[in-house]
Amino acid sequence: MNVVIVRYGEIGTKSRQTRRWFENILMNNIREALVSEGIEFKKVEAKHGRILVRTNRAKEAVDVLTRVFGIVSLSPAMEVEANLEKINKTALKLFRRKKRELGLERPRFRVTARRITKEFPLKSPEIQAKVGEYILENEESEVDLHNYDIEVGVELMEGKVYVFVDKVKAWGGLPIGTQGKVVALLSGGIDSPVAAFLMMKRGVEVIPVHIYMGEKTLEKVRKIWNQLKKYHYGGKAELIVVKPKERKRIIEKLKELGKEKYTCVFCKFMMVRHADKIAKDFGAKGIVMGDSLGQVASQTLENMYIVSQASDLPIYRPLIGMDKEEIVSIAKRIGTFELSTLPEDEIPFIPRHPIIRGSWEEFRKLYRAVFGEEPRKREC
Amino acid sequence: MNVVIVRYGEIGTKSRQTRRWFENILMNNIREALVSEGIEFKKVEAKHGRILVRTNRAKEAVDVLTRVFGIVSLSPAMEVEANLEKINKTALKLFRRKKRELGLERPRFRVTARRITKEFPLKSPEIQAKVGEYILENEESEVDLHNYDIEVGVELMEGKVYVFVDKVKAWGGLPIGTQGKVVALLSGGIDSPVAAFLMMKRGVEVIPVHIYMGEKTLEKVRKIWNQLKKYHYGGKAELIVVKPKERKRIIEKLKELGKEKYTCVFCKFMMVRHADKIAKDFGAKGIVMGDSLGQVASQTLENMYIVSQASDLPIYRPLIGMDKEEIVSIAKRIGTFELSTLPEDEIPFIPRHPIIRGSWEEFRKLYRAVFGEEPRKREC
Repeated sequence: MNVVIVRYGEIGTKSRQTRRWFENILMNNIREALVSEGIEFKKVEAKHGRILVRTNRAKEAVDVLTRVFGIVSLSPAMEVEANLEKINKTALKLFRRKKRELGLERPRFRVTARRITKEFPLKSPEIQAKVGEYILENEESEVDLHNYDIEVGVELMEGKVYVFVDKVKAWGGLPIGTQGKVVALLSGGIDSPVAAFLMMKRGVEVIPVHIYMGEKTLEKVRKIWNQLKKYHYGGKAELIVVKPKERKRIIEKLKELGKEKYTCVFCKFMMVRHADKIAKDFGAKGIVMGDSLGQVASQTLENMYIVSQASDLPIYRPLIGMDKEEIVSIAKRIGTFELSTLPEDEIPFIPRHPIIRGSWEEFRKLYRAVFGEEPRKREC
Repeated sequence: MNVVIVRYGEIGTKSRQTRRWFENILMNNIREALVSEGIEFKKVEAKHGRILVRTNRAKEAVDVLTRVFGIVSLSPAMEVEANLEKINKTALKLFRRKKRELGLERPRFRVTARRITKEFPLKSPEIQAKVGEYILENEESEVDLHNYDIEVGVELMEGKVYVFVDKVKAWGGLPIGTQGKVVALLSGGIDSPVAAFLMMKRGVEVIPVHIYMGEKTLEKVRKIWNQLKKYHYGGKAELIVVKPKERKRIIEKLKELGKEKYTCVFCKFMMVRHADKIAKDFGAKGIVMGDSLGQVASQTLENMYIVSQASDLPIYRPLIGMDKEEIVSIAKRIGTFELSTLPEDEIPFIPRHPIIRGSWEEFRKLYRAVFGEEPRKREC
């Protein structure tokens, strides 16, 4: 194989000009992915609604590029001169390779041809017929247009032909960098990395922020972010760790007031407050959190209301409608689940009975008692 | 069949007291579902971590109850006295029925027995062996613990046995009414019903609000809400339709200022403003919207920032991390897709080039020009 055909979805549906812009960002992300994974390539170019990556390490390149968002599917392919003899010989070679790989005596197959540019004399159905016959003559096999073991793809473009027998599905979504930036709060749990991942999938560059709890948890969050970075080509951000100076003061004051049950809501409020500041420093337009409604007793609409008041930025919660098992299955697919189950630091100040439906008015009083000012700091 | 076994997931993991509360809400939702669909039943009761619905229309009941959130799986079952002879005869009867249904000559099967209460003399493995033998003696079949066509379930509880051969998967989630209320904005498009559905799935009662565009669209939204109601047992809300008096004024002013490109952002802002007021009237704690990042050019972080300023309530966007095809596939499963593609009223005032990355400062100016006051109305 000497080339990878990259197919992208949603981008194609946008205006010509937007499309160029998308293609350029996608091509840059592809180059960045290949470079970071040390896979040499000669060229990445956009042609007639697909992207071609010229490399002799097509299979490895495909593995890496399944992690680049905006890509719908990939095919490692052979590019040769577009004449019938070359097409036949190449198709047969790839067919044989695939047949061996599948270990099938008499595979059912079909040939699917497309002329992306029309200079080739034969029409697609004629090409399909010719290549099909040639394979039938030379290999034990049968044609089956519906239940086939092997599909031989033949795409003709600008005097060249691209022949392939594999079509690998990728994540889809949009290229990172096309949708701006958000801050992602990473706690070390199972949910927050999945939330960050889903925003990245929609083309957002993520600025990962961790509020320090201890060395063990930090170590774990670093591992999680290193895993997420494999999906973040095109993004630049490095993990930002915040050591909250105000924590001691909050815990002591809540204790003094006998309101320890508000500790968790207060902690989350301050996390968002820190995320808000960082977002504004970096020009990020939102905050991502891993909240899923009712997953723990204290993950209620009331508590999320309070936490949301810490920032005027929208808080994005892509997991809000998901069950735990759905979240876990994504976490396993993207490789963060095992990392999220690594040991964490004990948190000494978690109350026995966290408030389940916190009151904003009561929270305001507590906030004023701790900081001597209003919790909301917005120009109105 | 004379009973339906209802299995629920997440609830089971909660504290004993919370669990009671959940079970009661789930049982009420089950009763409401059966009554609204006209399926008679004798009794709905919670027993040892499962719910039993006594009805002679078990199969129909199962179809309905797959739409009740909080339920993980359902089995139409036969309840008989717990003695080995009865168990064998019942198991054989159901096995034969299933065998006919599947049209298999020699089905592979396994028996799975559980003693939920322990008074029955035989242990589970012994029961499995006995029932298995009995079926083998009386029906052409073979035992296969791993690749089976039929699984015969036998659950023993309080002197009774429950025998079943079907286990129907349901949506999971949490029972509606356990997580409070949110306002759902329904536009008539494909996305907003899916967003509302996903919040409902997590146990939220939804208050559906439509901002009037015309009779055709309203008709369509009524149909969509009637479909969503089939998943909303336990919720009471009816569709609320708002006819926005301010629209004319906004459009004229934007035209006068040559800022038509802000029309859509302005419209969405006002939708949220209306939703905010209704939420506060009804004690709802959030607003659900169908936004998916970058799906249309104007669905940007910048525009969502502006729209979010219309309310201090959290705006939940369960679709924010999804691709269009994922959203469409859910819409098809829940039966709203076809309805969303019904004809709508033309919207005359949609600008040719809607603003893609709106500026909050510019929006504020425009808002002041239209209404003579600040867009944010929060106590700070």
